[in-house]
Amino acid sequence: MKIAVIGGTGYGAIELIRFLKNHPKVELTKVISHSQNGTKLSAVYPHLTDVIEMTMEALDVEELSKTIDLVFFATPSNVSKEYIPSLIEKGVKCIDLSGDFRLKSPESYERWYQSSPAPQAYVDKAVYGLSEIYGDQIKQANLIANPGCYPTATLLGLIPALKQQVIDPKSILIDAKSGVSGAGRGLSLNVHYSEMNENLKAYKLGQHKHIPEIEQILSNESGEDLTITFMTHLVPMTRGIMSTIYADLTEFKKTDEIIAFYHSFYQNHPFVRVRTDGSIPSTREVYGSNYCDIGIYADERTGKLTVISVIDNLVKGASGQAIQNMNLLYGWDVQTGIDHLPIYP
Amino acid sequence: MKIAVIGGTGYGAIELIRFLKNHPKVELTKVISHSQNGTKLSAVYPHLTDVIEMTMEALDVEELSKTIDLVFFATPSNVSKEYIPSLIEKGVKCIDLSGDFRLKSPESYERWYQSSPAPQAYVDKAVYGLSEIYGDQIKQANLIANPGCYPTATLLGLIPALKQQVIDPKSILIDAKSGVSGAGRGLSLNVHYSEMNENLKAYKLGQHKHIPEIEQILSNESGEDLTITFMTHLVPMTRGIMSTIYADLTEFKKTDEIIAFYHSFYQNHPFVRVRTDGSIPSTREVYGSNYCDIGIYADERTGKLTVISVIDNLVKGASGQAIQNMNLLYGWDVQTGIDHLPIYP
Amino acid sequence: MKIAVIGGTGYGAIELIRFLKNHPKVELTKVISHSQNGTKLSAVYPHLTDVIEMTMEALDVEELSKTIDLVFFATPSNVSKEYIPSLIEKGVKCIDLSGDFRLKSPESYERWYQSSPAPQAYVDKAVYGLSEIYGDQIKQANLIANPGCYPTATLLGLIPALKQQVIDPKSILIDAKSGVSGAGRGLSLNVHYSEMNENLKAYKLGQHKHIPEIEQILSNESGEDLTITFMTHLVPMTRGIMSTIYADLTEFKKTDEIIAFYHSFYQNHPFVRVRTDGSIPSTREVYGSNYCDIGIYADERTGKLTVISVIDNLVKGASGQAIQNMNLLYGWDVQTGIDHLPIYP
Amino acid sequence: MKIAVIGGTGYGAIELIRFLKNHPKVELTKVISHSQNGTKLSAVYPHLTDVIEMTMEALDVEELSKTIDLVFFATPSNVSKEYIPSLIEKGVKCIDLSGDFRLKSPESYERWYQSSPAPQAYVDKAVYGLSEIYGDQIKQANLIANPGCYPTATLLGLIPALKQQVIDPKSILIDAKSGVSGAGRGLSLNVHYSEMNENLKAYKLGQHKHIPEIEQILSNESGEDLTITFMTHLVPMTRGIMSTIYADLTEFKKTDEIIAFYHSFYQNHPFVRVRTDGSIPSTREVYGSNYCDIGIYADERTGKLTVISVIDNLVKGASGQAIQNMNLLYGWDVQTGIDHLPIYP
Repeated sequence: MKIAVIGGTGYGAIELIRFLKNHPKVELTKVISHSQNGTKLSAVYPHLTDVIEMTMEALDVEELSKTIDLVFFATPSNVSKEYIPSLIEKGVKCIDLSGDFRLKSPESYERWYQSSPAPQAYVDKAVYGLSEIYGDQIKQANLIANPGCYPTATLLGLIPALKQQVIDPKSILIDAKSGVSGAGRGLSLNVHYSEMNENLKAYKLGQHKHIPEIEQILSNESGEDLTITFMTHLVPMTRGIMSTIYADLTEFKKTDEIIAFYHSFYQNHPFVRVRTDGSIPSTREVYGSNYCDIGIYADERTGKLTVISVIDNLVKGASGQAIQNMNLLYGWDVQTGIDHLPIYP
Repeated sequence: MKIAVIGGTGYGAIELIRFLKNHPKVELTKVISHSQNGTKLSAVYPHLTDVIEMTMEALDVEELSKTIDLVFFATPSNVSKEYIPSLIEKGVKCIDLSGDFRLKSPESYERWYQSSPAPQAYVDKAVYGLSEIYGDQIKQANLIANPGCYPTATLLGLIPALKQQVIDPKSILIDAKSGVSGAGRGLSLNVHYSEMNENLKAYKLGQHKHIPEIEQILSNESGEDLTITFMTHLVPMTRGIMSTIYADLTEFKKTDEIIAFYHSFYQNHPFVRVRTDGSIPSTREVYGSNYCDIGIYADERTGKLTVISVIDNLVKGASGQAIQNMNLLYGWDVQTGIDHLPIYP
Repeated sequence: MKIAVIGGTGYGAIELIRFLKNHPKVELTKVISHSQNGTKLSAVYPHLTDVIEMTMEALDVEELSKTIDLVFFATPSNVSKEYIPSLIEKGVKCIDLSGDFRLKSPESYERWYQSSPAPQAYVDKAVYGLSEIYGDQIKQANLIANPGCYPTATLLGLIPALKQQVIDPKSILIDAKSGVSGAGRGLSLNVHYSEMNENLKAYKLGQHKHIPEIEQILSNESGEDLTITFMTHLVPMTRGIMSTIYADLTEFKKTDEIIAFYHSFYQNHPFVRVRTDGSIPSTREVYGSNYCDIGIYADERTGKLTVISVIDNLVKGASGQAIQNMNLLYGWDVQTGIDHLPIYP
Repeated sequence: MKIAVIGGTGYGAIELIRFLKNHPKVELTKVISHSQNGTKLSAVYPHLTDVIEMTMEALDVEELSKTIDLVFFATPSNVSKEYIPSLIEKGVKCIDLSGDFRLKSPESYERWYQSSPAPQAYVDKAVYGLSEIYGDQIKQANLIANPGCYPTATLLGLIPALKQQVIDPKSILIDAKSGVSGAGRGLSLNVHYSEMNENLKAYKLGQHKHIPEIEQILSNESGEDLTITFMTHLVPMTRGIMSTIYADLTEFKKTDEIIAFYHSFYQNHPFVRVRTDGSIPSTREVYGSNYCDIGIYADERTGKLTVISVIDNLVKGASGQAIQNMNLLYGWDVQTGIDHLPIYP
């Protein structure tokens, strides 16, 4: 199976390459970069020296379609929508790590992304790649819209409670915190080392593109139109996302009872680990791995459910889940090539 | 004016000493430590070498009362309550940075602190030292219960909205994040460098001692019994607290309108800086200083008010506010000795 | 092939377990811990939840020898020397990550370790497990003394120059810097988060146990008794060692010429990557991996050679190299189970 | 006394402003910025909100000379040399934090700065502002070339040993490490948060502009032409420089003896603190302050002297020392306005 990665100089691509290198079923054949066409990957990322000695190429849809079975787009917004339709038509499967095909509503896309949406026919075809929830559709897909990092942590933490109707869906509030790698490799004062180190910042209040993505899925799952409060913060660390999720319990249930339900909900999904001992996961406990760890606390005093959901934003929040979706697509064991333990400490 | 600091080896004491050294109205006469009695301060804190060359002493209430005008207790829970009553009786003013005299209800103290409360007569006398809110009482006090770090950031961010009745007090939810110095100098695996670096942790879910402290003040200010949701997180940085405060607007008001009210509420209080340009403060922007910076965002889509309130947990959240209260107590300019700019970057 | 890891609660053991879990040739059968006998590993290291669900056991040499082929000791000094002789006698191979069998001279051990040495007969038998240099002996060994973290980075950076006689061995000076995980999981004020974050410390000036280890090997390789200057620093990061190595060039050679020699020296050793483009590796470029990356600079103005050698202290500096030695021992491909790319960023 | 700061958006200027705000003898009258002319300082640095509400102006030498007594240049290389000559001629005193007037030899400037030197007459007049060493000349100066950050830490650590002739000047080697703020506020991939966090980098091997600056002063002080080895590293922290200085002792002296000499050398200089108890300073112990702390270790085994010298690169390494030089120039107490304790932790 021959694979191409597009967007070769970003952190998403680099994580894909880390996992693809050791994946036993596929061969990474091309790395494509518009801006670095002709440059050796190891010149941009010296940690690949002697191991991945490929030269980045320009994107040529025609040629790709002749040699490649599946393409990962690890590009910024507004790139994949230009190329994916013709690749799909030529029989190449696509997994898109950008947001171009995630929002079903073109109005919503225009509002939140401030640009024109992808062709609606392809948006309609795209399967939302939240692996544990939409595995059956993913297996049939030609085009997978890989979820955003915040939505992955948040939705995996929320959907069991929502489905079980233990919470009031109108009361959902998510306070999310991310490591800085989520901002990518592009330079900006905001993530200049001396500005971000020993600092904690809230950002994009009420404006984050992941809000409509989370709302769309929650609305689908609950069957009613939901509006949520979702706030994002940058934490002085490179990797990790924590979604601290709050919602009112419809009627009080003990922590253990809710844990038991979550545990059973995810029992066939090795990458979601519900803490059954009542411990609360920290982001380091999934560092570098594809796990989503979930801790649960039901507060009798306030009637609130709190769910803490942590992932590595670059793995389960991006490239790891993309590989997981490829595994689903081809019917391989879901853990193939991504069964690494977290790196601790 | 002669001053003693009790609890000489903790971070709270060390910050008091930093500010007292340059305070023009007082003389730091004694540093007291039970565990390090007889040791030079600079042997425990080499950054004081050649500048503060005092030797720590044991606590002797009788002797203190003859030579000292005011005592700061920067001790763990359950220490100050043993000594403050007799010091007060002997005419020594006390500012207590611990939680011993903060909660008015002995039942509440017993429940949250898991130990027996201070003598009620002295608890009744103690003034809660949230400088900007209770300045008039502080000026008259003999005993000041200096607020906790989380309550300081949270209450300064909430009280204007509560007083103005722009929010539904039953909807208040606070997601708070702290740097690690709040955990003090005591060793524990939780704050071992390799465990905490590149890590983000939620802790003490529903159990934090600062919950009843915040509820007590909010209940006083609103005139009704309030129960809040308050969650705490450890962020991989040394200093800084951010309280992200959420509440439902009773009727929608634009961000600018709420900012204007906050700005006017704090106009005579130089240490609270409301961002009038709509920017959102980060913790680094108050680092090392006594400022509390407040950013405001009213979300028309959700009807939620979000207030971001940041402080340096060791300064406005502890020692800086304690000095501010001393200044109030003696009628000095409130900025005396603590008018430092934040250290940036 | 059945494997036991002894010292189950330390960072060295945890890294061994990470690699052994995915190693195709071996089965991790026992994890042994004196202090945590009877405890589940995942209770001490929650990142192992659901994946490694073993219970730690007490050490029983008799039983071990019946079921286990190879034992890794990831214990503090003064433990392995009590058990290794009888294990060896019973036919169990041992790889010791502690310093107990590294120094050939008992006087030297006593001086630097301040305790009595291991039985000399076993010290004599032990092969020093610097994989790239002593591969032939390692293949024949029953007992491998796995090198220290600093010696690994330093020796791999120095030995080619020393062997080629391009430097004056008497002029060698090494300024080494380590991430904090090298100090282990034991609590101490020195590595308390708030003391170590945003801080840089020199430590153990002239006293570090790795000094005689480096001198012993350099003396062997050069054929003369060498005394070196070696200084250690703690850097505020979890993982990574950089040895900045200085020595006088016997006669000036250009950087490229020295690079070419180093490159050829290590050409059959995939884990040592000499930067041929003149770039200088940073520690992040080997993070989480078994690589040692080497950059070289010959200064025409001063006549000094500078070699920058970086490793992940917990991988190539400990557990990764231990697995590499196991691979050598059993004649497997040297990269088996440890062929991960560095995690970047 | 009216003061202007030129280069208003850099970290050097911001630290000057922090100290000038509380300096009792001067008034900060103008902040000048070429790129941000017309912008409010607090829009660029929100931590100044409500406290320093000045608008940045363009540079007008004529107007400056009518209203300003002293100008600080906190500009990049190649700026101050354009303006300082005419300011000096018009009677304005100048303290230049850039390197434009530090190197006496125009050939050396051209070689290391790769640009044409300042007018030689003014270079000749400029006094090198290493406050503790050149205080007498500084008092008479119109133009002070404020030292670089690395030279400050290094020279204060080396000069006593050199003057006392306890070391062989030909053997000097300095391994220097800096926090990231030394790289300034300009964006570059090298100091992008995700690239620099959890990372340690050597940089500018043999090329650093501070090499000729250190050599010039050491040559002056020793009376012979010296060439040194000087290496720089970036450490993942914002502030702090450590120079680890190595040199051969001409004849062995005990650590205590050398400490005693250093202590006496600096006895009238409050900002240099020699550790007399044999402890070794870490960078955090001078954080935010103007101190240079020095630890000493003489190794009997190797005959090497090691001096560890730490400063805050933005304070004693830049703005703090600039204020100290202003104090010297006007005959004020040297500690005026910069007598802050380090911020710890």
